[in-house]
Amino acid sequence: VSKKISIGILGATSYTGIELVRLLARHPGVSISFISSRSNPNERYSKIFPEIKGIFDATLIAPEDTYTETVDCVFSCLPHAVSAELLLPFIEKGTRVIDLSADFRIKDPHIYEQWYKHKHPAVDLLKKSVYGLPEHYRKQIAGAQILANPGCYVTSVILPLIPLFKKAGAVIEWVIADSKSGVSGAGRTLKMTNSFCEAHDNFSAYAVGHSHRHTPEMEQELSLAAKKPVTLTFSPHLLPINRGILSTLYIKTALSTAECQAIIAAEYANEPFVRVREAGDLPDIHDVAYTNYCDMAFTGGSDGCPVIAVSTLDNLVKGASGQAVQNMNIMFGFGETTGLLR
Amino acid sequence: VSKKISIGILGATSYTGIELVRLLARHPGVSISFISSRSNPNERYSKIFPEIKGIFDATLIAPEDTYTETVDCVFSCLPHAVSAELLLPFIEKGTRVIDLSADFRIKDPHIYEQWYKHKHPAVDLLKKSVYGLPEHYRKQIAGAQILANPGCYVTSVILPLIPLFKKAGAVIEWVIADSKSGVSGAGRTLKMTNSFCEAHDNFSAYAVGHSHRHTPEMEQELSLAAKKPVTLTFSPHLLPINRGILSTLYIKTALSTAECQAIIAAEYANEPFVRVREAGDLPDIHDVAYTNYCDMAFTGGSDGCPVIAVSTLDNLVKGASGQAVQNMNIMFGFGETTGLLR
Amino acid sequence: VSKKISIGILGATSYTGIELVRLLARHPGVSISFISSRSNPNERYSKIFPEIKGIFDATLIAPEDTYTETVDCVFSCLPHAVSAELLLPFIEKGTRVIDLSADFRIKDPHIYEQWYKHKHPAVDLLKKSVYGLPEHYRKQIAGAQILANPGCYVTSVILPLIPLFKKAGAVIEWVIADSKSGVSGAGRTLKMTNSFCEAHDNFSAYAVGHSHRHTPEMEQELSLAAKKPVTLTFSPHLLPINRGILSTLYIKTALSTAECQAIIAAEYANEPFVRVREAGDLPDIHDVAYTNYCDMAFTGGSDGCPVIAVSTLDNLVKGASGQAVQNMNIMFGFGETTGLLR
Amino acid sequence: VSKKISIGILGATSYTGIELVRLLARHPGVSISFISSRSNPNERYSKIFPEIKGIFDATLIAPEDTYTETVDCVFSCLPHAVSAELLLPFIEKGTRVIDLSADFRIKDPHIYEQWYKHKHPAVDLLKKSVYGLPEHYRKQIAGAQILANPGCYVTSVILPLIPLFKKAGAVIEWVIADSKSGVSGAGRTLKMTNSFCEAHDNFSAYAVGHSHRHTPEMEQELSLAAKKPVTLTFSPHLLPINRGILSTLYIKTALSTAECQAIIAAEYANEPFVRVREAGDLPDIHDVAYTNYCDMAFTGGSDGCPVIAVSTLDNLVKGASGQAVQNMNIMFGFGETTGLLR
Repeated sequence: VSKKISIGILGATSYTGIELVRLLARHPGVSISFISSRSNPNERYSKIFPEIKGIFDATLIAPEDTYTETVDCVFSCLPHAVSAELLLPFIEKGTRVIDLSADFRIKDPHIYEQWYKHKHPAVDLLKKSVYGLPEHYRKQIAGAQILANPGCYVTSVILPLIPLFKKAGAVIEWVIADSKSGVSGAGRTLKMTNSFCEAHDNFSAYAVGHSHRHTPEMEQELSLAAKKPVTLTFSPHLLPINRGILSTLYIKTALSTAECQAIIAAEYANEPFVRVREAGDLPDIHDVAYTNYCDMAFTGGSDGCPVIAVSTLDNLVKGASGQAVQNMNIMFGFGETTGLLR
Repeated sequence: VSKKISIGILGATSYTGIELVRLLARHPGVSISFISSRSNPNERYSKIFPEIKGIFDATLIAPEDTYTETVDCVFSCLPHAVSAELLLPFIEKGTRVIDLSADFRIKDPHIYEQWYKHKHPAVDLLKKSVYGLPEHYRKQIAGAQILANPGCYVTSVILPLIPLFKKAGAVIEWVIADSKSGVSGAGRTLKMTNSFCEAHDNFSAYAVGHSHRHTPEMEQELSLAAKKPVTLTFSPHLLPINRGILSTLYIKTALSTAECQAIIAAEYANEPFVRVREAGDLPDIHDVAYTNYCDMAFTGGSDGCPVIAVSTLDNLVKGASGQAVQNMNIMFGFGETTGLLR
Repeated sequence: VSKKISIGILGATSYTGIELVRLLARHPGVSISFISSRSNPNERYSKIFPEIKGIFDATLIAPEDTYTETVDCVFSCLPHAVSAELLLPFIEKGTRVIDLSADFRIKDPHIYEQWYKHKHPAVDLLKKSVYGLPEHYRKQIAGAQILANPGCYVTSVILPLIPLFKKAGAVIEWVIADSKSGVSGAGRTLKMTNSFCEAHDNFSAYAVGHSHRHTPEMEQELSLAAKKPVTLTFSPHLLPINRGILSTLYIKTALSTAECQAIIAAEYANEPFVRVREAGDLPDIHDVAYTNYCDMAFTGGSDGCPVIAVSTLDNLVKGASGQAVQNMNIMFGFGETTGLLR
Repeated sequence: VSKKISIGILGATSYTGIELVRLLARHPGVSISFISSRSNPNERYSKIFPEIKGIFDATLIAPEDTYTETVDCVFSCLPHAVSAELLLPFIEKGTRVIDLSADFRIKDPHIYEQWYKHKHPAVDLLKKSVYGLPEHYRKQIAGAQILANPGCYVTSVILPLIPLFKKAGAVIEWVIADSKSGVSGAGRTLKMTNSFCEAHDNFSAYAVGHSHRHTPEMEQELSLAAKKPVTLTFSPHLLPINRGILSTLYIKTALSTAECQAIIAAEYANEPFVRVREAGDLPDIHDVAYTNYCDMAFTGGSDGCPVIAVSTLDNLVKGASGQAVQNMNIMFGFGETTGLLR
């Protein structure tokens, strides 16, 4: 890499923000031009995250002060609604943006409004945005101006399912995704359920069935793969750990476990960040924590039991900031794994 | 209680053993006559569990030295196979026994042998044994000589399901039980997967689908309730906590969520240790840890999603030693909650 | 116990509040007349703590609505400053009160003001209040109207030290208390440092040296024991666990480790809730969690190393609500261990 | 880096072994020629550590099969006694070795024997070995054949103390090091105290006072710094986390806190892996986990309280494998931070 690209980060004081800074601070092709925060403008970044000392530091600026900045790429780690709004000025002046929120993921604005209870501020940009799942949209990502980085639960659920729905959508009857996530997935906001004494030594289900906001995103991508409408049951749970998601997928299908395993193994054979394990060799969260890998394997399928897939990833890396860097690498012509092998 | 019953405990150095000692040491109707251990005979109990000092102490005796003891009731916290073998001499001399292992749970010796890879040592005693789920076998428990205390996962899975299968077995198409347990469920044995550095910050699936030994026990009891053969998919997972099980049950049925909720609420209205929460008010592990309660609630059922039940209990209390004391209370005429309200 | 006493609890939605409710709900001599909360008046208690269902439930009342209540004893789980203020009306009408805050612990109002940055609202009541450490003030506690329940860190630090200072204050040169506490000690308030993602997998020192508010309370009691002014170095740390304190005390003294051990063992030989272990048999947090015990042992003292004491207790039980119940038992003539053996 | 050096690793299935493999697999100047294991010879490495798939894999060889290998550098992650023995053949043929065990750290063989209860197998090699603390032995490390990598506790304790003892040994009266470590420090061996259910939610002191084997290593290096014999009190504790050490050091000295802080800040101003924080800005374990940093700051010193230093590092990185790579970088002329910035 001869010349570095300049980037800016909105929402840098979130957990995905600090993870992104950590990754980009040591990316050989990137120079961080600004970091911004709504809650902590004018604060030194290292005051909030002392771990970053000696690696990268800067003063956080207010979002409104970012618009005079000219950079090659802006990342947003802001929550939905706020994210699109603060990205719009950059999009308008032609800056390439990578949005880690849900704002540009859902193609149908009515579905967005129904699930996010918020009117989308830029409906016509939705068709311009590219869904940033590199394993399935690599070509489109390369040319994207607006990159919608996938949700963490979503990545763990659809990576094992898309190839099956593509090859055999007709013979998949139903899917139940029972997912479990670490607490950092809930963001760096004060909430009683995320306080130590409540989450530690605990485990809980929430938004089970068909009510979590990641559901329509899963259904959109699986429907595109199946070329017909797909619905699924999705039940998230809260694990007493900081990072990591493990999804147990129950798949009612005419395919055998071996067939599923073979389809997936073939599909992802050359992917740098998907590791398909042998049938029955189920991955766990330790296998992927602090990395950009998504590991998966199939089992079940006999004695009347559905085919079962287990997939796992780090919600802050492959589920968010690592995948965002992977997308940036593709968009700007860096090697896809640059800055992500650690 | 005027006169105390005398009891003995086999396998007292297990996690269910220490929990049982803790409960019985302060039970007003019980006097602990002996505790035994295969691995630590002749050791002071407080040397192994210093927490027990001032509450109860004794020297552990070897199993073979227990046979000269005459007590009213013997509890076994031993693993399967060993348990039945060491209980047999007591059963023969008419002592009432409460077996926390699987040895007397499975009525069909062929199924026992198939799943436990071990020839049952006393096949004809199986029909004499009573399955110790108080909510459904209270009358039989009162007169039992051989009490088979249910498995921890099993209790969490079948308590919400038995009433449904009894009332509506014909309209339940399938059930998937996605269960998550704390590490103490694996027992107090040295194993790499149970070491701190492996289990902490981790989460993993194991024996998923139709391969965990608790499966036939669930199927036996659900089939009895449904009056027809029932199979289910059961997937256990390992949580990075010491105690607690939460089961997420996906139930494909013609019943609505409200109907399921109503059936359960009616069934358990007067049960001292089952707390049915309102629909959608899902319990978590904190709600039941260190208690003999099993909490549960129903949700889901719309948008093509199956009915979902979430149930939770403490695997060492309602899932093992607490339930054993509850059974003892019934067997010996104590108040059913004696020694269990803490 | 023939007749029950009636009690009320201020600040019932704190962690010490729920622990107190749990203990008192099953205390045979107590009837809970009211529970109050500043933050959640008019809320069902079980809505906030679902674990309490079936054990005790009531609607929380506002503090100002408590004054028309007539009870035998009021407990306050409120923070300092607020606590004295809301207890005053009860004290004035002669109700006996047990204050878990620091408001009545420090006898010298100037020291109180210096450390708590707050003018004491009832200076003349300070001399009436009794410091509720049963092991050393049992007789005074029996007759107390205003009971100042000791701090959690304080109890763990002074229980091993008071007998030494009493017998040998002159030959103790200095003491360093390096203490470690679980997160519940910080209370049930939203703070970033107590959020799961910050506290989990972490360990930190705070207010080290001579700056934590529990320091003057320790110095007051040790000075009384030594009959001369005592200062000490106290360094608290935050452990990634919910409950439990372990204090490592470095004691520079002319006494040998064996002498210290003997003094302590003699002093506490008949205490129901202090367990002195043998020299070198150091207790850990598991030994005391969920109990009202304080365990301790001595070691060190050779090779130029100071005598070292390790003491441990559950900050919510012996460090707060359990000790409060122990004090209530003494004040109202119940057996001292009533409701505390579990 | 044009040509890569070849390296071998003994004891690769330990926690320091896997950490070393992870670091070296992506080090641009290194090629891993062999990994060996006493317990798992002929096993695929990824079978034991599935997380390593796609990063590095090889078949573990038996220690005796390593001697025919010719490499530039051999790392040993073996326990003491075994380590020196298996390194000897390499040392004899002139290979440069980096020993993560204690075998070459203690210069005085009598002290080694006294503390390690084992006769040193190569006493005359002790004077050839270089103590691998880069901040203080950089020049000697560059030319070392036998590199003794420091202990994890030791690094956290002596990095803040050596500069003080060098400048002001005469005015330091005593030091107490109260250290707390994550469980991985105890190694990847099955032991009841390291099992999940025992270590989780727990905290314990062990080998306190003057009995832990890291004590003589601390005293050796501090005595060299002070140019006179130094002894200290060292008390290790076990934290319920995987990785990280935090040491709280109590230093009785005529120096003020500000003077200590200034000495340290000056000494480490240009060190890439020591971050001196401002006085009172105490680091915690999160600040350094998964990095090669050691962070530290001073506080205390007033109101009769000794000066207090808090230092923290990741026991598997700066406390072991990261420091070993840092030493290798110096020995072989790589940039000192190569492969260590992540």
